[in-house]
Amino acid sequence: MKSKSIFYIIYNIMKNNFKNKFYNEISVKLKNDLYKINIGYMLLKNNIINFKIKKKNNLLIITNKIILNLYKDYINNFIKKKNIKYKIFIIKDGESYKNIKTVNKIINYLLSNNYDKNTILISLGGGVIGDITGFTASIYHRGIKFIQIPTTLLSQVDASIGGKTGVNHKIGKNMIGTFYQPIIILTDIFFLKTLSKKELKSGLVEVIKYGIIFDKKFFNWIEDNINDLININKKKILYCVNRCCEIKSFFIKNDEKENNIRSLLNLGHTYGHAIESYTKYKNWSHGESVASGIIMSCFTSEQLNIFKKKYTKRIIKLFKLLDLNIKGPDNMNATDYIKYMKIDKKATLNKINLIIPIRIGKAIIMNNVSENIIIKSINKAKKL
Amino acid sequence: MKSKSIFYIIYNIMKNNFKNKFYNEISVKLKNDLYKINIGYMLLKNNIINFKIKKKNNLLIITNKIILNLYKDYINNFIKKKNIKYKIFIIKDGESYKNIKTVNKIINYLLSNNYDKNTILISLGGGVIGDITGFTASIYHRGIKFIQIPTTLLSQVDASIGGKTGVNHKIGKNMIGTFYQPIIILTDIFFLKTLSKKELKSGLVEVIKYGIIFDKKFFNWIEDNINDLININKKKILYCVNRCCEIKSFFIKNDEKENNIRSLLNLGHTYGHAIESYTKYKNWSHGESVASGIIMSCFTSEQLNIFKKKYTKRIIKLFKLLDLNIKGPDNMNATDYIKYMKIDKKATLNKINLIIPIRIGKAIIMNNVSENIIIKSINKAKKL
Ligand SMILES: NC(=O)c1ccc[n+]([C@@H]2O[C@H](COP(=O)([O-])OP(=O)(O)OC[C@H]3O[C@@H](n4cnc5c(N)ncnc54)[C@H](O)[C@@H]3O)[C@@H](O)[C@H]2O)c1
Ligand SMILES: NC(=O)c1ccc[n+]([C@@H]2O[C@H](COP(=O)([O-])OP(=O)(O)OC[C@H]3O[C@@H](n4cnc5c(N)ncnc54)[C@H](O)[C@@H]3O)[C@@H](O)[C@H]2O)c1
Ligand SMILES: [Zn+2]
Ligand SMILES: [Zn+2]
Repeated sequence: MKSKSIFYIIYNIMKNNFKNKFYNEISVKLKNDLYKINIGYMLLKNNIINFKIKKKNNLLIITNKIILNLYKDYINNFIKKKNIKYKIFIIKDGESYKNIKTVNKIINYLLSNNYDKNTILISLGGGVIGDITGFTASIYHRGIKFIQIPTTLLSQVDASIGGKTGVNHKIGKNMIGTFYQPIIILTDIFFLKTLSKKELKSGLVEVIKYGIIFDKKFFNWIEDNINDLININKKKILYCVNRCCEIKSFFIKNDEKENNIRSLLNLGHTYGHAIESYTKYKNWSHGESVASGIIMSCFTSEQLNIFKKKYTKRIIKLFKLLDLNIKGPDNMNATDYIKYMKIDKKATLNKINLIIPIRIGKAIIMNNVSENIIIKSINKAKKL
Repeated sequence: MKSKSIFYIIYNIMKNNFKNKFYNEISVKLKNDLYKINIGYMLLKNNIINFKIKKKNNLLIITNKIILNLYKDYINNFIKKKNIKYKIFIIKDGESYKNIKTVNKIINYLLSNNYDKNTILISLGGGVIGDITGFTASIYHRGIKFIQIPTTLLSQVDASIGGKTGVNHKIGKNMIGTFYQPIIILTDIFFLKTLSKKELKSGLVEVIKYGIIFDKKFFNWIEDNINDLININKKKILYCVNRCCEIKSFFIKNDEKENNIRSLLNLGHTYGHAIESYTKYKNWSHGESVASGIIMSCFTSEQLNIFKKKYTKRIIKLFKLLDLNIKGPDNMNATDYIKYMKIDKKATLNKINLIIPIRIGKAIIMNNVSENIIIKSINKAKKL
């Protein structure tokens, strides 16, 4: 991974070289997998990327109506050039459909239409579609290939990278899933222009997360450019997505199965998942929930005398600029949080493990944080 | 793997050394996994095997009523020695319950009872329970550990080894699944004494399969000892299970994901799976279906002028000694077979790939066998 100190050099090179056809490639090299993230603007339309699809490969694109209506022509164009037959399978939109039933529907379709093990599934959508498609690919015929085409900011900077797949269970988020890598990720910031501001901001929460856990300079850069990012300034967003992909692949390369450092990416997520579970994956988006969770983690760290108050203030300021609710749901009290946090995937023997920021640019994993401190942190956020 | 030529030397050593406590260990070394198959008699009761379970590990044994009633004390004894808490989850008996619904039930139980990612699932049963348990372990919390304790001959010589997990779909067998290895396999021939003759014979079909595809001398030995095997002569069965585990691990080690030689293990299975699908996994056991399939494959090979008639005769003779129906279901005609064979996992672009024996001890993969020859082979078996 590029050293953090050459951050500004790279940024300036990119700024100067940036054309409509800007294109970058990040290699994700894992123990058993090697694939590329292709990042650019109008990637597919300009046919910059070049990956092979063989005659024997049947393509099935998994997407939803919203995305299909917006990008039918774009996809058509792209695949026509490749001279390949494909079908589209529509799933319903929303986190509440990220469940085993939807997976079953896709599998029924695949089996009923004789899709064999040379099938390639293409996920065209946000993290929800990506997680469902990846999981389905991992269990169909004991594993078929799949391609990620992330269309939300959150999925471009986070969900599409790293091979975590899965679906929710009424008792908890992402409880059913696998580790399964795509063969390529096509990340086109062109998609972002149609994204609602709400979804865009959700993605920016994860962007800020990378700054907090790993890259102080990037965090400073975000602070300086937050308005450009909100307004989808092409150059800035492109730079930002690229940097996030670099950071996330760094974590993945070093800890694919999340045995240690990869779990730092979960900053704010233990609290956040509790919110999502409690609100049944409705009303509260992933990004909003995580933003609240990050603030609660900051408060936790403050109470442990680790994190400085001034850091928390800077983070709160950023989230407020994004107009995010960082207090968690009004009707959810600390006991509710604790209940869900204990069944979180990261919990062990009922003990809650948390990611704790120690300063901007660095975080640690802390086992067995006391319930008392957690409760205080939640209540402190409520009072914001 | 031990050279075939020293087969008799090994056999004689084993024959002499064999005591009630006979015990052998086979290492399965894969790219990312290393685990042992512990083979013996009264393995668990005698506590010969020694694997570590940590305090934080919650154990859940997946089994069915039949097996639990027979082996409650045996298991109790074993686990008590280890001073470990465990629970038992009962699933319904039979191939028709090897589906996603049963997996959901186990996952609901795990989640409702706060089983975390340090849980170890123990499969106690035949191939059905092994496949379900392995699949569940592979998708729960993106993968938890599991142990195989195979209790049928078929699962001891075949299903428990190699990490293929999965469940059936109404459209086809094992269509949903993963590659996921156990942390240890505990193979105790003690279980076999309560097995019905029908199930025992089903297992012997796979044993014979190993002889046909890989080991001529082992095939000869089976012919000489078939009655002792049917009567579960302890020494002979133990030797037989051990040899099969060696052969299967050899294939797995060399081709874990079944890209080439591992598929030789599917001799008779493309025809066989068609029978199982057609009869909706009822009446026709896996072993019986595969026996018919092996004969059909022999006929296919005969028609391609590869396999000698005298070999087919020897195989038929063995299957007849086992009193197996090798004609396939009376009401299933060649068109029915073709339909199901085309959606078999091994089919590509609607073309049927078959494993074809070329002589006793050797088989090959043949792509694109003509439908005409397949139909003739099926009809020839029907006339037996
Ligand atoms: N696998 C991982 O490593 C990982 C990491 C982070 C999050 N996730 C998962 O990702 C999910 C959240 O992803 P998300 O935020 O992308 O949500 P999402 O997939 O639900 O997408 C948000 C909304 O935007 C719409 N949309 C998508 N692309 C659009 C576009 N270009 N223009 C207009 N609308 C568009 C979608 O239809 C949806 O309504 C969660 O389920 C979360 O668990 C997974
Ligand atoms: N994963 C693989 O690589 C692989 C390989 C081959 C077969 N399989 C699968 O294995 C399954 C068949 O396995 P099976 O033949 O073991 O069938 P099974 O698991 O259904 O067991 C057969 C019957 O024997 C009973 N039984 C089990 N142990 C017993 C014992 N010790 N005493 C008395 N009764 C006992 C069971 O309750 C059941 O009724 C199929 O689903 C097949 O697809 C998987
Ligand atoms: Zn997230
Ligand atoms: Zn079999």
